[in-house]
Amino acid sequence: MDKTITSKTKIFNAAAELFRSQGYHATSLNQITKNSEASRGSIYYYFPKGKEQLAIEAIKQTGENRKDFIKHHLSQEDDAALSIHKQVSAMADALAARMESLDNAASEISLVSMTSEVSASNETIRLACEAVYIEWQQMYYEKLTSSGYSQETAERLAVSVQAMIEGAYVLSITSKNSKPMQLISEQILEILQQ
Amino acid sequence: MDKTITSKTKIFNAAAELFRSQGYHATSLNQITKNSEASRGSIYYYFPKGKEQLAIEAIKQTGENRKDFIKHHLSQEDDAALSIHKQVSAMADALAARMESLDNAASEISLVSMTSEVSASNETIRLACEAVYIEWQQMYYEKLTSSGYSQETAERLAVSVQAMIEGAYVLSITSKNSKPMQLISEQILEILQQ
Repeated sequence: MDKTITSKTKIFNAAAELFRSQGYHATSLNQITKNSEASRGSIYYYFPKGKEQLAIEAIKQTGENRKDFIKHHLSQEDDAALSIHKQVSAMADALAARMESLDNAASEISLVSMTSEVSASNETIRLACEAVYIEWQQMYYEKLTSSGYSQETAERLAVSVQAMIEGAYVLSITSKNSKPMQLISEQILEILQQ
Repeated sequence: MDKTITSKTKIFNAAAELFRSQGYHATSLNQITKNSEASRGSIYYYFPKGKEQLAIEAIKQTGENRKDFIKHHLSQEDDAALSIHKQVSAMADALAARMESLDNAASEISLVSMTSEVSASNETIRLACEAVYIEWQQMYYEKLTSSGYSQETAERLAVSVQAMIEGAYVLSITSKNSKPMQLISEQILEILQQ
């Protein structure tokens, strides 16, 4: 295996894991160094802007992963309502599995946690989070308009679906129970089928 | 004015302001001491468990404030759909005003930011946040059941309304724009009037 890729990936995965479990501000470069078994020099070699750059990369990676996930599900059904419902339902199942096994996806963070904690104090991170939310919403918007919804209705629905997903995720982690995510996946089907 | 109340309130307000603007982990007792012009001794006198206790008090205060706000609006209309819509619409207006003037409510924090950042690593704070969400949802649930919704539907709708509010708040602060909150207030009326 290429050692260069391995070191960089190790650093990135250690940072993402720390951001996910304890947040951005509580994570120090010392911890990232220790958990990735990398030197501080190699962290700055791969990520010259340090912790902030690692956060930006983790936000982008999380954005790409979810985009692939949404794209896959939206392509499975012509019907917008059914395809979006199935995508959110799959998220609820994945969350339930993760809560039971503590089997976290190593390269992902929670965008809602990152933006809630950091966006008020760090404009670079806020803009990166905003860009990802816009991309995700755009995918719902396009599926809805291509299924015949007006642009105005599609925009309102895309924002509502995104808000429900982010909010239900927060309610689920707060209650250590994936039920809120399951309930909104049913509600989304109800809303979109009307 | 009673000096005892003033010192305690000053400490509490300084802590809430710091939690709101930069999060829990980034806030140090030193900063709370400095911003409240209190001594470290007086912080531990009023809040023996320090920063964690200040966070718990801020979570409870935020819970009580929102409860009063929800209660007021739900009592204004017999119709559940209209009253919940008007309450969320009032939240969107308040958020828009706050974003323009930076006029923050000094004694409140953002529950969604606190729980997203801290719940994975601090069980005491997670439980305090969970209790507040349960209380808020219960108010929607009761209004909906008293308006004729079945218990099952009322539960799903109460969780969906709560999820939309929390999610739209996050989308609004991420985009520095209150439009997501305005859009979900319209969507909530659509959902509940069907």
